[in-house]
Amino acid sequence: MKLQTALDTLTIQQCIDLLEKTRGYVDIAEVGTPFIIEQGMVPVKTLKERFPEIEILADAKIMDAGEFEADKCFDAGADIVTVLGVSNDETIKGGVRSARKHNGKVMVDMIAVKNLVERTREIDLMGVDYICVHTAFDIQALGNDPLEELKTVNSVIENASSAVAGGVKLATIDDIVAEGAEIIVVGGAICNAKDPAAMAREMKGHLK
Amino acid sequence: MKLQTALDTLTIQQCIDLLEKTRGYVDIAEVGTPFIIEQGMVPVKTLKERFPEIEILADAKIMDAGEFEADKCFDAGADIVTVLGVSNDETIKGGVRSARKHNGKVMVDMIAVKNLVERTREIDLMGVDYICVHTAFDIQALGNDPLEELKTVNSVIENASSAVAGGVKLATIDDIVAEGAEIIVVGGAICNAKDPAAMAREMKGHLK
Repeated sequence: MKLQTALDTLTIQQCIDLLEKTRGYVDIAEVGTPFIIEQGMVPVKTLKERFPEIEILADAKIMDAGEFEADKCFDAGADIVTVLGVSNDETIKGGVRSARKHNGKVMVDMIAVKNLVERTREIDLMGVDYICVHTAFDIQALGNDPLEELKTVNSVIENASSAVAGGVKLATIDDIVAEGAEIIVVGGAICNAKDPAAMAREMKGHLK
Repeated sequence: MKLQTALDTLTIQQCIDLLEKTRGYVDIAEVGTPFIIEQGMVPVKTLKERFPEIEILADAKIMDAGEFEADKCFDAGADIVTVLGVSNDETIKGGVRSARKHNGKVMVDMIAVKNLVERTREIDLMGVDYICVHTAFDIQALGNDPLEELKTVNSVIENASSAVAGGVKLATIDDIVAEGAEIIVVGGAICNAKDPAAMAREMKGHLK
C-alpha cells in the first residue's frame, strides 16, 4: 500500500518542508487540481527535481484531449496523471497512450461517476494503472465517504489496481486498509493538521 | 452573439499577437485547459492586463471544490469560469457563489453529459450564466458535432443562455448561427488557420 498526500492548500515551500519532514513516509506527492489551476506544471517540476525518489502525481483531472494534456504533465516530470472516469473512452485511452510513451501511469478518478459497476468494468479494460474512487470535497459535508465505492470497485477490477480518496482521516483509514487499496490518498487530514509531518507518519503507520 | 476564441495551442506571445490583430472581432478570449495545465493562471493575468476590454474565460473545467477553484480563476482576472456539467450539483453551485462574489460569470460545460435534457433542466435552475454544449476534441474525429445538442439545450433552457463548442468551423458556423447561441466558441479553426486573425474576422462576420 502506498500513501499519497494531496497537496492542495499549501504553498510550494510548505510542500517542500512537509516532504522533507516525511521522507520515507509519503510515497506519492499529489499536486492537487487547485494547485495546477493556479500554477500549472511549476509545482510538478519543482517537486520532481527536489524529490526524485517520490512519485509525483499531477491531479489534472483530464476531461478531453487526453493524450495532449497528459503529455504536458508527463513532460513536466509527473509519474502519474489523473483522467476523469466521466470523460469519453477516447480521452482515457489517449491518457494511456501518453503514459506508455513516457513510462508513466494513469489514474482514473471516478468522482461523480453514476454507474460505478458498469463504468469500472469498461475502464478496467482500457489499460489504466489505477481506478480511484473519490468522494468529492463538495459532497463530503453531506456525510458521504468512499468506503462503499471502494468495495464496489475492488469487486469488479481484474486488471487495474484500486485507489481511494475523499476525506480519508485517522477515524476511517483502518476500515479502508482492511478493505484494501493499492493507493490511499490523504489530503486535508494531513495538510490541515497542526503538525502535518507527524500526521503523515501516523497515517503511514496504519497502512499495510 | 459573441465570438469566443479558444487559445489552446499557441504561445502567450502568439495569443497576444492574435488578439491585437483581431481587436473588435474577438469578444471572449478563452485560456484553454491545456494552457492552464501548463501555465496555471499566468495567461489569464497576462491577457486580462493587456486586453481589459476583452472578456477572459478560464477553461478550468472545474469538477470539485467549485467555489475554491473558481475563486482562484476570478482572483486572477477571469471574467468567466467553466465548471463541468458532469460534476456534483454542489460543485456547480459553489462556482455560482464564487461568481456572485467576484461579479463574474459561470459557464457550465456539458461535455460528456449523457442525460442532456434532464441535466440541462437541473443546471438551468442553479443560477449559471451559460450552458455550453461541447463535442469533445477526442470524439470529433468520429464525426460528432454539437448542433443537435445545441438544439436540445435551446429547447430546454429558461434562465441560462446557450453556448456551443467543439469543432466549429466555417463549414458549420452558419447552421449554428441559424439555430442560435449567445456564445460561439471557435478553437482550432482559428488557431490552426494559416492566418488566424483573418479567420477570426471572417468567423465574426458570420455571427448575428
